Amino acid sequence: MVEIVHMIDSEVFLAFSTYATIVILKMMLMSLVTSYYRLTKQVFANIEDTTLVKSTEDRKKLVRFDPDVERVRRCHQNDLENIVPFVVIGLLYSLTGPDLSSALLHFRVFVGSRFIHTVTYLMALPQPSRGLFFGVGLCATMSMAYRVLTTALFL
Amino acid sequence: MVEIVHMIDSEVFLAFSTYATIVILKMMLMSLVTSYYRLTKQVFANIEDTTLVKSTEDRKKLVRFDPDVERVRRCHQNDLENIVPFVVIGLLYSLTGPDLSSALLHFRVFVGSRFIHTVTYLMALPQPSRGLFFGVGLCATMSMAYRVLTTALFL
Amino acid sequence: MVEIVHMIDSEVFLAFSTYATIVILKMMLMSLVTSYYRLTKQVFANIEDTTLVKSTEDRKKLVRFDPDVERVRRCHQNDLENIVPFVVIGLLYSLTGPDLSSALLHFRVFVGSRFIHTVTYLMALPQPSRGLFFGVGLCATMSMAYRVLTTALFL
Repeated sequence: MVEIVHMIDSEVFLAFSTYATIVILKMMLMSLVTSYYRLTKQVFANIEDTTLVKSTEDRKKLVRFDPDVERVRRCHQNDLENIVPFVVIGLLYSLTGPDLSSALLHFRVFVGSRFIHTVTYLMALPQPSRGLFFGVGLCATMSMAYRVLTTALFL
Repeated sequence: MVEIVHMIDSEVFLAFSTYATIVILKMMLMSLVTSYYRLTKQVFANIEDTTLVKSTEDRKKLVRFDPDVERVRRCHQNDLENIVPFVVIGLLYSLTGPDLSSALLHFRVFVGSRFIHTVTYLMALPQPSRGLFFGVGLCATMSMAYRVLTTALFL
Repeated sequence: MVEIVHMIDSEVFLAFSTYATIVILKMMLMSLVTSYYRLTKQVFANIEDTTLVKSTEDRKKLVRFDPDVERVRRCHQNDLENIVPFVVIGLLYSLTGPDLSSALLHFRVFVGSRFIHTVTYLMALPQPSRGLFFGVGLCATMSMAYRVLTTALFL
């Protein structure tokens, strides 16, 4: 992590900024997908939310579970558990001065795998498709973590 | 993202550090609110936690769900899903060299909206109050993401 | 936060990079522990996942809750709620130019407390052991946040 200051001005850092922003926006989109499902399927987690679609007595029945909503929420949770580590480790990795081509490879593989992971999750495609793309993203992050630890190790 | 190095020494970066720390502390506070509710209402998620309030036979009954505890947990989860993207995109945004006034506007609107969002969630205020402040925070983050992508795009 | 640029090249920043990467990898490990429990105990959250262990008619029964799997998931969630704040505040703290010894103390105490927290959670050790190590980690993060706010305050 020598000459880190130059690294921040580098194309690697610009690429990191771009891919991190795209994948975070993708994660935020899951909130809107959840809201869309809740409103169209009339499935709510809070009693006060039911007034958004109904004002009569039987509003309490709308506070319930729905397998499709829960699926979107699990997908969102999986994003949180994987995209947050990518962003943290990707930022530190960008500061270790990797080759631009290696960095782009890591960023593209990770971001691509997360987009496909979301499709496989929401469409309930047969396994091991989802597991595979989860694993690909995990490996990209692990590979960057390996470089951070071998370059910057200071315990 | 030219002259990024100067940006890190800027007032924008100091402002980002301040608001990011405040909103992260607010998110961490949700853990303590959950613990407070669990202890005062005697509602636990783990059998070993019940010894904190009771040592007799009927401890198993205390491992249960409670709507108020679940409400705090959903609020905490919503914070995770929104504050983490703000921190990541806000950091990158701070490095794009925005005007101090624009940056302060984004940070204040986001942090303010999340504090009000928490109040509307925990007090179960009528909709669309909570949805509104969720949306305001989302727009602040989206607006910063737009600037990052238009300034730093490198695919 | 004067001379922040020099700080990024410092041993404090190298130490932060190391400890942040280690504790994020530890958090990611929870995904694999969950997968291991799901596969060995045959407990799934999605119907399509059941084909990984069984191909016959009664696959639907494998979509169920299991207390051990839920315990791992609560532990993972607790990591998200605590490690993400550490990473964000730790990064900003590293840029405030703390003594190397103070910084190492904060990083080591936090990371150590989270490893022990995971052991106490997964082994269901008697309370208040888990609460204690949760609190130690929280205090380490709070202490760094205090330094960020007193050094960089710009509202």
